[in-house]
Order: sequence, then C-alpha cells, then structure tokens
Amino acid sequence: MKFFQHTLQLKERKRGFHLVTAEVMQSLPQISDVTLGICQVFIQHTSASLTLNENADPTVRKDFEMYFNKTVPENDPDYVHDYEGSDDMPAHLKAALLGSSVMIPISKGKLALGTWQGIYLCEHRNYGQKRNLVITIWGV
Amino acid sequence: MKFFQHTLQLKERKRGFHLVTAEVMQSLPQISDVTLGICQVFIQHTSASLTLNENADPTVRKDFEMYFNKTVPENDPDYVHDYEGSDDMPAHLKAALLGSSVMIPISKGKLALGTWQGIYLCEHRNYGQKRNLVITIWGV
Amino acid sequence: MKFFQHTLQLKERKRGFHLVTAEVMQSLPQISDVTLGICQVFIQHTSASLTLNENADPTVRKDFEMYFNKTVPENDPDYVHDYEGSDDMPAHLKAALLGSSVMIPISKGKLALGTWQGIYLCEHRNYGQKRNLVITIWGV
Repeated sequence: MKFFQHTLQLKERKRGFHLVTAEVMQSLPQISDVTLGICQVFIQHTSASLTLNENADPTVRKDFEMYFNKTVPENDPDYVHDYEGSDDMPAHLKAALLGSSVMIPISKGKLALGTWQGIYLCEHRNYGQKRNLVITIWGV
Repeated sequence: MKFFQHTLQLKERKRGFHLVTAEVMQSLPQISDVTLGICQVFIQHTSASLTLNENADPTVRKDFEMYFNKTVPENDPDYVHDYEGSDDMPAHLKAALLGSSVMIPISKGKLALGTWQGIYLCEHRNYGQKRNLVITIWGV
Repeated sequence: MKFFQHTLQLKERKRGFHLVTAEVMQSLPQISDVTLGICQVFIQHTSASLTLNENADPTVRKDFEMYFNKTVPENDPDYVHDYEGSDDMPAHLKAALLGSSVMIPISKGKLALGTWQGIYLCEHRNYGQKRNLVITIWGV
C-alpha cells in the first residue's frame, strides 16, 4: 500500500475557469509507482473550487464563467452576507455547486482521465489569491 | 494502513444549512493516529446533503438557504413527482446539486481543512428527520 | 488491504437520468470480501455525469431531466462554444453541476447506500454514446 500527500500552491489567477491538469500532474512524480489507486485533489478555500471538464477548446471555459455568473447573480438584494464585495457571496455559492475536490482513479501509473477530461481551477473572486491544493494519492 | 468506519446519527434539524464540523470531529477519536489520509463523510439520504463552505459568519448559511430556494423553486407546475409535499422534489434536486459526501484530507492527525472551511449539513425538507452519516477514514 | 479496479462500459442510453445501481453492483463480485471500505464510480466523460438520488419512483428522474433543462438552457445566445450542437455546452455544464464520480462507503461486503439511494447515470447528450466507468474499491 502506498500513500503520498503534498500541498501544491497555485499562483494567483484572474476570475474564471483555468485548466491546471499539467501543474497537478507535474507535482506528482510518485504516481508512476502506483499500479492502481486514487488521486484526490482538494482545495482549502471556500471561494474557489475544482471540477473536471473539457480540456480542449478554451471557449468551454469562457462559457462556464458566463453561465455561473448568470445562475449565481451578484447584487441580489436578498443577500445578507454582502460586506466582502459583490463577488463574495456568489463565490461561496459557486464553490458549493462545483465542489471542493476531484477524485481521479489511477491506472498503470497515470491519472485515468478520459480523453477530453481536464482539471479546472474555478476562481470565483475578482482578485484571486494563491490557492492551496492538498493532493493525496493512494494505491498499490 | 489504518481503516475506520462508523455511523453518526445527527439529531433532527430544521430546514436550512447547519455547521456540523465539531460533531463530526468529536466522533473521530481515531484520527489522531493517522499521519496522512482521507476522511469521507457520507449521508445516507436523498433529501439532505453535505458540502464544505464558510465556517464563520452565519449569514452565509442563511444566504445559501435563500439562494437554493430561488434556484430550485417549489410548486413548479412541471414537477410530476409532487405527492410527498412541495418541498420534496426540490429537496432531491438540491441534494444532487450539493452532493452526498465530502472528502477531506487528513494531515498529522487532523482534518486538513482550510481556515474558513466547515462541514455543512444541508437539510432540504421542511421537517428534517434524524440523518445518518457514514464516516470512513483511512491512511497511514 | 484490498484494492480492485475495473472498467465497466455502459450501453448507449437516451438523454435523461438512468438508474444503474444494479449494473454497477453486478460488476463488483470482489465487494463481498471487503468488510469495510469505499467504492468510487468515476465516469470518463464530460457530457455525462453521475449522482446519487431516489431509487424508487421513476418520476423523480423525469423531474431531474426537466429541471436541469430549465436551469441550463440550450441556445443561450451568450454561448460561444456552440458548434457541436445545442445540447453540447449545456451537457458540459450539467456534468459539472452533478459531478464526475460518486463515492460510496462499503460495510460488511455491501455498498452502504441508504434505503432510497441509487446511482444515476446522467446522460446529457441527445444521442448518448457508450459510457466508460472506472470503478475502484478499497478497504479491509
């Protein structure tokens, strides 16, 4: 049984959906020793999130930003928690809709992603900060 | 390799978003022996859910309740499954949007949550019942 | 420590929400040897997804299809990624809202699902294709 864990700090990014598959994979040299297992990528924040989606056409990520801005509007007069900026409460809601971690199987030393799957960092604040990911892999 | 699992029954709570981090942690004495690992908290229900979000200001949880009521309306005439109460079908949809489990890394005997992250029990029924969580931790 | 992984290819299904609990369980003969553990079911696609929800009344699944079509509309003129059909970009968004995997605890050789929980394959394309699931179980 193998078990590895490390923290990966991602640089600040602007609000939007960013493909970070390569950064995550480069931080995982131990994965080549894992014949079968699981990788969890966890974000330690409540105004940014992680999801898996289309890794090819950048317009998909633009449409994600457009859609989530429509479906979680800013400046809803019904928000009570509004003192950290108009992007703050929507950021918390978007993070809950998308989720704080992704779990990816490992097969033969590699992430068993589908052909079109990539890891998105979803930055929901106008001025993103550095974001900490805790990455854990386990397997045999 | 360590592996522990138990069921934690949460008391009935009213409809809304409730911070249950302390209850979950108190039920996990074995975690102190885990240097690195993962904790899964799983809810065995389809009209309540779990998510991670802001653990400080209670108005965030009030805004969650407001937002999810708006985005998953009751009494949509297009609902077919409507015989268990106007809150029932929306409860199933909210549960799917938010998810039935949270996965949290364990580092040095503690849940590796970010500073602002807490575990929410999301009760989507008007009259919540006792809710069963199955909590599993594994690691080294 | 036990660790098993296999790929289950699901047949083509029409757009909608489909209960696949029985198919997943039938593909897991090794589970009877696991006293306690976890099962992850992961979908290797970005236009179909997995969730857990009500396993009894089929109208719940019809209402899921209705709701997600309303909340993620087709033909929004603001979509930029629109050249793969009007169902394509909504499929990516629905997949992100629902998620690409479910994680279910294992207790005494069985999936520890609640009484009313089943596994949904959520097919978001008009003409679904065969869908690959990577199923991993681990435990003691």
